[in-house]
Amino acid sequence: MIYKAISAHNAFTTKIVSNLGFDFVWASSLEVSTSFCLPDASIVTFDTIKSVVEHMVRVSAKPIIVDCDSGYGNEVNTLYALKDLKKIGVHAICIEDNIFPKQNSFYEGTRKLEDKDVFCNKIRIAKKIFNDNNDIIIARTEALIQGMSQREALNRSLAYIKSGANYILPHSKKTNVNELLTFARSWNKYAPIVAVPSTYSSATAKELEEAGVKIVIYANHTIRTIKKALETTLPKILISGRTHEIEGEISPLKEILKYYEN
Amino acid sequence: MIYKAISAHNAFTTKIVSNLGFDFVWASSLEVSTSFCLPDASIVTFDTIKSVVEHMVRVSAKPIIVDCDSGYGNEVNTLYALKDLKKIGVHAICIEDNIFPKQNSFYEGTRKLEDKDVFCNKIRIAKKIFNDNNDIIIARTEALIQGMSQREALNRSLAYIKSGANYILPHSKKTNVNELLTFARSWNKYAPIVAVPSTYSSATAKELEEAGVKIVIYANHTIRTIKKALETTLPKILISGRTHEIEGEISPLKEILKYYEN
Amino acid sequence: MIYKAISAHNAFTTKIVSNLGFDFVWASSLEVSTSFCLPDASIVTFDTIKSVVEHMVRVSAKPIIVDCDSGYGNEVNTLYALKDLKKIGVHAICIEDNIFPKQNSFYEGTRKLEDKDVFCNKIRIAKKIFNDNNDIIIARTEALIQGMSQREALNRSLAYIKSGANYILPHSKKTNVNELLTFARSWNKYAPIVAVPSTYSSATAKELEEAGVKIVIYANHTIRTIKKALETTLPKILISGRTHEIEGEISPLKEILKYYEN
Amino acid sequence: MIYKAISAHNAFTTKIVSNLGFDFVWASSLEVSTSFCLPDASIVTFDTIKSVVEHMVRVSAKPIIVDCDSGYGNEVNTLYALKDLKKIGVHAICIEDNIFPKQNSFYEGTRKLEDKDVFCNKIRIAKKIFNDNNDIIIARTEALIQGMSQREALNRSLAYIKSGANYILPHSKKTNVNELLTFARSWNKYAPIVAVPSTYSSATAKELEEAGVKIVIYANHTIRTIKKALETTLPKILISGRTHEIEGEISPLKEILKYYEN
Repeated sequence: MIYKAISAHNAFTTKIVSNLGFDFVWASSLEVSTSFCLPDASIVTFDTIKSVVEHMVRVSAKPIIVDCDSGYGNEVNTLYALKDLKKIGVHAICIEDNIFPKQNSFYEGTRKLEDKDVFCNKIRIAKKIFNDNNDIIIARTEALIQGMSQREALNRSLAYIKSGANYILPHSKKTNVNELLTFARSWNKYAPIVAVPSTYSSATAKELEEAGVKIVIYANHTIRTIKKALETTLPKILISGRTHEIEGEISPLKEILKYYEN
Repeated sequence: MIYKAISAHNAFTTKIVSNLGFDFVWASSLEVSTSFCLPDASIVTFDTIKSVVEHMVRVSAKPIIVDCDSGYGNEVNTLYALKDLKKIGVHAICIEDNIFPKQNSFYEGTRKLEDKDVFCNKIRIAKKIFNDNNDIIIARTEALIQGMSQREALNRSLAYIKSGANYILPHSKKTNVNELLTFARSWNKYAPIVAVPSTYSSATAKELEEAGVKIVIYANHTIRTIKKALETTLPKILISGRTHEIEGEISPLKEILKYYEN
Repeated sequence: MIYKAISAHNAFTTKIVSNLGFDFVWASSLEVSTSFCLPDASIVTFDTIKSVVEHMVRVSAKPIIVDCDSGYGNEVNTLYALKDLKKIGVHAICIEDNIFPKQNSFYEGTRKLEDKDVFCNKIRIAKKIFNDNNDIIIARTEALIQGMSQREALNRSLAYIKSGANYILPHSKKTNVNELLTFARSWNKYAPIVAVPSTYSSATAKELEEAGVKIVIYANHTIRTIKKALETTLPKILISGRTHEIEGEISPLKEILKYYEN
Repeated sequence: MIYKAISAHNAFTTKIVSNLGFDFVWASSLEVSTSFCLPDASIVTFDTIKSVVEHMVRVSAKPIIVDCDSGYGNEVNTLYALKDLKKIGVHAICIEDNIFPKQNSFYEGTRKLEDKDVFCNKIRIAKKIFNDNNDIIIARTEALIQGMSQREALNRSLAYIKSGANYILPHSKKTNVNELLTFARSWNKYAPIVAVPSTYSSATAKELEEAGVKIVIYANHTIRTIKKALETTLPKILISGRTHEIEGEISPLKEILKYYEN
């Protein structure tokens, strides 16, 4: 059994994608930032993220995993933010060992990671807050993204699990799955793995599952679907001078009119 | 020449649709409400709408027309709200003669309209604020929507233009354009008309233009495109167990990563 | 036993006044509006009020009674708003039979009240949401404020209690307590009374208690204390050219530096 | 001539204190954080600060100097935040060489300062945005606060002015003015000085002026006045069982009722 999470960035996309058969909704920082046309670099501040997540929680048919970046600053920022998230009904979070302000993993350039001990402290803080039976703390290491060794990735991962995380996410931006599989072999199912196959999109869920992956996150596909669809469909209105021709490729108005009903 | 406006509901959709060839972006109440999964009935309050519009204005490649519903309450509410919109860079608004809380025109049931004189006051207030040369005030009458006579629609429209509106929007929910055309013939190009062909979608822009329409608003097609696209594309991930198969029908990740750049 | 509530308008004033011996904190619309320098007339919208109240709830040492004005619109607005308040930890609300947008009771001019049956519906909605044992619903009638008869005030009050309110607040702007006492005699302790002696400030809690008042709300005294204090103390800085002379009449800096600690 | 700035933290306090004879209003981070009962340590995020400042700007009778802490993160965060502040009508800012998250200067413990070159970059960014004739950029160095040498404070100050700041604020937490005066003698009026005599409160404006100080900021006296006043005045209500006895030490209700008028 492998769980599948799909990205969203507001109440509307959350309600739609949470009803499509996925197991979790990923409150993606990249998607939320992009929904404001701001870079995925801690420019959208936590107060705004909290407000977005609150609306997502209200309407989601599935549990939400909140992408908490590097914890919004130091340990104290992490503490305040996670307490707020717990209070609004969040039960699953992911936190990564980037320094603040975090930079999207796919942005160019290399960056220093957070000191391992400092990051373990953030996980311990998370553990004190998300300590119910079904709460999920995913620790994400950017070691491989930053070109560090598999050994460093494993050491960090081990420390993060020992500090209280119950899932490890060894992020990779390789275009094939090998880097992740190498990690997984050495990791030897010490704790369940989370995979984000944004670049290694050929890997199947089955393949990942065999390697010890328990959750796969499709982390940005909702907003990517939206961009393409709008750019494909809407220009047709200008060509035909009316919307009649696109009625078949858009949802009926009445589906939108009632979309708030629970 | 007829101008075309296309709906949007956040910064991201605004930036996309404002670059597709349309002349205006319609900050749709229905779309904004739906983006929060809340009914289009003055549940999303003005403070939130203002914040959404501010982000839209920041990124839009085209002028934004703000759907101001019935003005957010009485004349005083209208005054405060419109001053705020002007301050954040809005130059075009639409205000309708529904009472507060407004109900979406396509919701079932009939409703009383705002007293004509009270609504004229709201327009006068709008005129004092949006008084620059290129500012646009669209007065929208729901008379036909509420089953009132053409005469009532015309009388109200005339009063609204005399109070300072520079466009009239005689809203109609008929499935063909006849009701609007009947209005237009009697109106006799007294002032430019705005049309919202949500239901009479077979009418072409050319046809509308000949009847005296100067702006046509495609008022909910962005969010309708999104819903259909997400429901069509994302389930394929679950079928194939990976995103590889949908890469062709979604935008490349790198387009999203740089989407904040101006 | 009579309970005493004191007004507040943000987290800071809430934390201070909730530690002074009062039994409740009154989240006053007048104070919150004034804290934004906006009229007490439904200009500050619910989304902002909710955010303010959320911070107040977080730090208050005593239960908060939220001044919900006339319910933020019609019954549907009331429903959405009260659900939100309940979710953020509110257990006591007050709702009044003004129409939307409400106008402060002490503003000049007279206004129509909300239809009695419509207002009873709002109370029924409140009752469905605030239905825990200790939840408090105060129904406030503006009948006396608007110059209606005692009989009308009593009839409305009776209907409100029957619809689910557990306290009645017969608001009065007389400079003595007689109007309230007259009401109380006829009311004959049918349900506990809430008094807001903003104008009849000579009436003592003991006097009110004997008349059947169970909660007295000092509804605007926090912000009034602040205005006078700032206008009295701060100009002295300009006179002496330093703050040395006022150190005795302001709190030590170290009290402020640690004021966030719980 | 020496200018005097007085602290505030919301629209209401801004309107009051901006009418008392001071030349500037200081949008104090300590006061804003404390108004939310949150530590002055970058817990209140910029989105919230922006919203608070926007309301302050709207009502202030005097220019506002915004306390921008260390710039809300790295240079990119600073860039986005300052552009937003400029857009809402701010013309004067102060930025300090603490690292993010900033800690209040009076909190215990010592902290590393931001790298000098990085901070100069932040000032250059500020200079590009606040480049109108009357715009004010105050660079605040925490060198003395952190126990560094006068030489280090002077070197940093010089670099900051050369990078575009037009005022230098050498922050000091000594209980007498000597540390500041020593700095001022060596500085030799190279650029105007800003002083914040929170601890050296015996120093007079005249004394400071002679040393080259052009602006003195009373940085936390508004909120300190409020705390003391509420704790002194309100308990008297409980003692006398009514507000009658305190009417003389609070502002009349009618002053509050009209306080929104411009």
